This record gives sequence, C-alpha cells and structure tokens, in this order.
Amino acid sequence: MKRRDVLKVAGAGFAAAAIAKPAIAQSMPELKWRCTSSFPKSLDTLYGGAEIFAKAVAEATENKFQIQVFAAGEIVPGLQAADAVTNGTVEMCHTASYYYVGKDPTFALPCAVPFGLNARMQNAWVYFGGGIDLTNEFYKKYNIYALPAGNTGCQMGGWFRKEIKEPGDFNGLKMRIGGYAGRVLQKLGCVPQQLAGGDIYPALEKGTIDAAEWVGPYDDEKLGFYKVAPYYYYPGWWEGGTMIHAFINIDKWSSLSPTYKSIVRTAADMTNVWMQAKYDAVNPAALRRLVAEKTQLRPFSQPVMDACFKAANEVYDEVSATNPMFKKIWESIRDFRNEEYLWWSVAEYNNDNYMIRHTRS
Amino acid sequence: MKRRDVLKVAGAGFAAAAIAKPAIAQSMPELKWRCTSSFPKSLDTLYGGAEIFAKAVAEATENKFQIQVFAAGEIVPGLQAADAVTNGTVEMCHTASYYYVGKDPTFALPCAVPFGLNARMQNAWVYFGGGIDLTNEFYKKYNIYALPAGNTGCQMGGWFRKEIKEPGDFNGLKMRIGGYAGRVLQKLGCVPQQLAGGDIYPALEKGTIDAAEWVGPYDDEKLGFYKVAPYYYYPGWWEGGTMIHAFINIDKWSSLSPTYKSIVRTAADMTNVWMQAKYDAVNPAALRRLVAEKTQLRPFSQPVMDACFKAANEVYDEVSATNPMFKKIWESIRDFRNEEYLWWSVAEYNNDNYMIRHTRS
Repeated sequence: MKRRDVLKVAGAGFAAAAIAKPAIAQSMPELKWRCTSSFPKSLDTLYGGAEIFAKAVAEATENKFQIQVFAAGEIVPGLQAADAVTNGTVEMCHTASYYYVGKDPTFALPCAVPFGLNARMQNAWVYFGGGIDLTNEFYKKYNIYALPAGNTGCQMGGWFRKEIKEPGDFNGLKMRIGGYAGRVLQKLGCVPQQLAGGDIYPALEKGTIDAAEWVGPYDDEKLGFYKVAPYYYYPGWWEGGTMIHAFINIDKWSSLSPTYKSIVRTAADMTNVWMQAKYDAVNPAALRRLVAEKTQLRPFSQPVMDACFKAANEVYDEVSATNPMFKKIWESIRDFRNEEYLWWSVAEYNNDNYMIRHTRS
Repeated sequence: MKRRDVLKVAGAGFAAAAIAKPAIAQSMPELKWRCTSSFPKSLDTLYGGAEIFAKAVAEATENKFQIQVFAAGEIVPGLQAADAVTNGTVEMCHTASYYYVGKDPTFALPCAVPFGLNARMQNAWVYFGGGIDLTNEFYKKYNIYALPAGNTGCQMGGWFRKEIKEPGDFNGLKMRIGGYAGRVLQKLGCVPQQLAGGDIYPALEKGTIDAAEWVGPYDDEKLGFYKVAPYYYYPGWWEGGTMIHAFINIDKWSSLSPTYKSIVRTAADMTNVWMQAKYDAVNPAALRRLVAEKTQLRPFSQPVMDACFKAANEVYDEVSATNPMFKKIWESIRDFRNEEYLWWSVAEYNNDNYMIRHTRS
C-alpha cells in the first residue's frame, strides 16, 4: 500500500463526512450470502475459518451483511464448492483450491504444490509478490475472485501400513493423495487414489489402500488413521504451507461497495492468521497423543526426498510446456521461493534449529 | 472462538435487523483518534503497519472512525509512545512493547525475549494460548489494552566491527542493544547502550560503540551500518519473532461500541499478517544487496549461543524471583514454546531444511 493511497483515502474521508448518512445507506445495504465450506464441521480449524470470517463481516456491518456458512454436503459436496461459486448457486465458498486440479492444474498453485512455499512465504508472495493478482487473473475464467483465508502450515507426509525406506517402496503403493502430488508420485510407480475424508479409514483398514495423507496431527487424529496404519511420515513435501481461500462469485464481488469489499478483504486476512495460529496451537498436543497411541514417526529418507523432488520438477516442466498460465504462475512462485529460502536459511532457520535442540523436554 | 459464540452473534444479528438504522446511529459514531507510532516514516514496514491499520478501520466505517497516524517525534518521541497512551495524550500508539522494560521487564514478554517464540508461535500463543488475556492483565496497570498488530520475524544478531568467535569476545564490548537482551549480554561482560535509531550510525562510525543490533536486512540497510561494521551476525536469538502491538488507552477501548471493537480487532489482526508478509517479501533482496556491499555474514558460534542461552535462563530466574507477573507470563510462554518446538521439529523444520539445501541459486 503506497502512502499516497492512504492520503487519498483520508482525503475522501473528510469529503464524505458531510454526507455520511446517505453514504452508509448506499454502501452498507442489507445482504445475505451463503458460503459453502469444503469441510465438515468436525474439522473445527478448517471449517471454523469460514465461521470466524462470517462473524467478522457481520460484526463490522452490524449484521447488515450476513454470510451463512454451510458445511460440506449441506448445499453441495465439499469438492464441488468452487463449481457452486462459478455457476452462482452460492455467493462464495471456503475451500482448498487444489481440489479442482481436474479442471486445470493451475488451481493447485495458489494453494500448495510439491516443494513450494512455506506458510509465511505463501503470504509474502500473495500479498507482496504479485500472487493475488496473478492468481485472480487465472480464477477469472471460472467467475471466481479469490482471497487468501487460512493456512494449515506444513502438513505431514501421511500414514503408511508399511515403512517407506527407498523410492522403490512407492512402486505399486496405493495411496490416497490429492491430484497434483499424486501425479508426482505416479512417476515413482505409486497408484494415487481420490477418496473423500470419510472413506479413507475403512479403505486403509481393509487394505484397499496402503497409505493416505490428510493434513497433520490435529485433523488426522480425528479420522483415526493411527489405528490402522502405524507409520506417520514427514514432511508433507507436497504441502509446505497449504493456503485456504475464500472464492467469491466475481459478479457478487464486483457488486459490493468499496466499504464491503474492504471489510471482506480484512476479514479474510484475519482468517488467514487465525487458522494458522489455531493449527500451530493445537497440533503439538495432538502429536503427543498420537505418539502415546504407538504412532511411529518417520522422516522420508534423503533418497526418497530426492526422487520426489526430481519427479516434481519433471511434472512442472511437463505441465508448463502445454499450459502457459500454469507456467507463468509457477515460475513466479519458484523464483520467489528461491529468494525466500536464501533469506530463511540465515536468521529464521538457524534460530529454529537452535531452539529445537534446546527445548527438548 | 467457540461455536456457541458464533451462534449467539448470529442470533443477535437477526434480532438487530429490525432496528438496523438506530443501531448504526448509536454504535458507529464519528470518532477521530490519534495514533503515535514509535517508528519513523522511513521504516515503511514498521511505520506502514499503523497506516494500514488506520486505513482498514476508516474503510470499514466509511470514514466515521478516523485514526490519524503520527510518526515518532511528531507528538512524542518514539520511546514514549506507551506513556502517551497511559496518560491519555493520544488514544493509541503502535509500538514495540519491550521499549518499556525500564518500567517493568514484563513489558518484554509479549514482544520478544531471548530464546522465546518464533513469529508463528507468537501468534499461536497470543490468540490460542491465553497470551492476549495474560498480557492485558499486566497492561491494565498502565491503562493500556493491547492488540497484536505486526511482527518482524526472526531478527538478525547485529553488526560488529570485529568478529565474535567465542563468549569472551563479548567482554567489554560496547553494544547498542535493547533493555532485556542487554541484561543477558551483560552477564558475558558486554556493556549495553541505549541509542535511538538515528544515533547508532555515527556512534558505530566513531567507534564509541563496537556493535549494534537493529532489525534485519531491509531496515538495517537503510541505516547504513554495513559501511562501518562489516560483520553481520545471526540469528538474533533475543528476537525470534518480534511482535508489534497496538496499545489503546483502556478507557478509550472500553468506550468503543462492540461494532468498533470488532472492526479494530480485525484490522489489528490484518496488520499482524500484513507486516510479517511485507518483511518476508523485502528482506531477501536487501540481504543480497548487503552482501554485494561486502557485508560478512557470520553465524554466532555454538559456544556463543550456549553461553547466551545459559545467561538468558539465569536472567529469567532472577526476574521471576521478584516479579510474580513476569514469572506467570514467562512460564506460560516457556511451556508453550517447548511444546511448539516439539511439533516444529517434525514437519515444518524438516521441510524448510530440505528446501534450503535444494533451492540454492
């Protein structure tokens, strides 16, 4: 935000003061929107984000702008939330953009991609690295205006019935894993499966699948995977900082007054920091509980990480070769990431490194 | 936020709809506040935070609630911003709480303390670990209600005219460093100096001081330290994630309508994520420029870090022995930190570790 913009606004403010009441009447109309979440109510961190967002908008507008939140399945299934926004069934949704890679792999980029940005870098790219404009240039085609509204932080690498020691152990492995990351693991012979949250546990229990990734300790514990797959791998290199978005129907967004646009944007930013803080607060105790239940924590080995990194870069090249929008956004993320990690390796990483070694209890 | 709170608000909303206009007239009065920043305008990330905050409040209220931001020195000097809030000279300020450790060392805790929380953990503690209530219990004595409104991320360890290789190299070293961290370094024989930003460069140039810490690459570059002190150390273990706060006069805060309180809180949360994202976006290029100017990056050695960690723990014990409020808040932070780093050492840290080693360009 440039200083002159601030001054311009302040100027407009003084001018508007004389006609304050008519301005409010015009620009704070009564509105009722519906927001379909891609998440069930049981996932109080993901689903809760939409409620916190709606609450902030309602409070700021004295309930003149009410956004009613619906859990996945109440209006449309969780994985069809974006479609409901595109076709105007609902005014907005709260979702993970990578759910829609079937339409276009570009959907994965603003959300999480293999060996991408961590959560703070994702914010830096979105707010100050041109990310929000670049991605909305893409979403426009789907009648969507997107705002960042949540992050999970770095996710876990999922639950495995058998240990994964080398890249070859992925060969033939049937794993529940999302679209873009699944394409990367296919290069190692993995057979990715698309399953909704509630279907994962029985599949893992029966052995229909050998492995499944979901989010991290707090959410994964709720789904009970630790009971049927003892090995819990890290890091989830395909989700270094998964960003959740508010997708708003573009005509509905355009129809908002500048006041309402500002309120919605600020509420989304608040939701962004809220969700990450909540995940960071609840994950440690969940991790302890999982370990107490005999969960075996395992890091992916260096050869496994290297094979996945190589495979990911191949997939980036393949998709970029035929999809100019993907190429444009991916290159922006990749270049930004390389600069960010250069700086991260200095103060931030070394501080964390020391603290990790000196806070063991 | 509990679900029943959300429902309560939604319920209130429906009831309020019938009397929407009178409600607005009562709860969105015209207000003009003054916010004194502790920072000069040249530090566009720190100072800019207050402007972004004020802009969001103005936009949400159609300029009915206007907060005018003043740079350090325009109303009161930067280090007296909190006093101006306490005594009602201004309605609020935007500041670093550790500037006021002269009054009580407890002021350092919500901001940054040696070997404390990183930026994300700071948010987790504040919003979900009881931090915001604990710290406001303390601030009350100073007529202050505090909201988190910014973070710098992990800072650098400062600029040194000579290399620091072992703990003994701090002995007799005159260093510009803030109050609480200075007390820790005193245990190593360091002579801490309190100097305002603009006085550091000439002191370092003349050799009146041997070293100085400020923030990180982007801010430090502006003050030109690299020209007179070639060694730039990391990490700034006394500022793992420095939180900036909005301090609001408690009577002024209490006098706000629930609508305005909500708008102010949401705007502060937005400013919190905004500032961290901006720092993360601008630091990498500044670091590159500093290195191009022959800045010598140096990590603090393991013996130096260990001596500082030991000294910090001694100071925590000493202060806790005589200051029950400090003890209460510090123990909350310390226990939270230990749990956070346990989780951080799994997915987040290992992901960053891999990315740092594979994104070198």
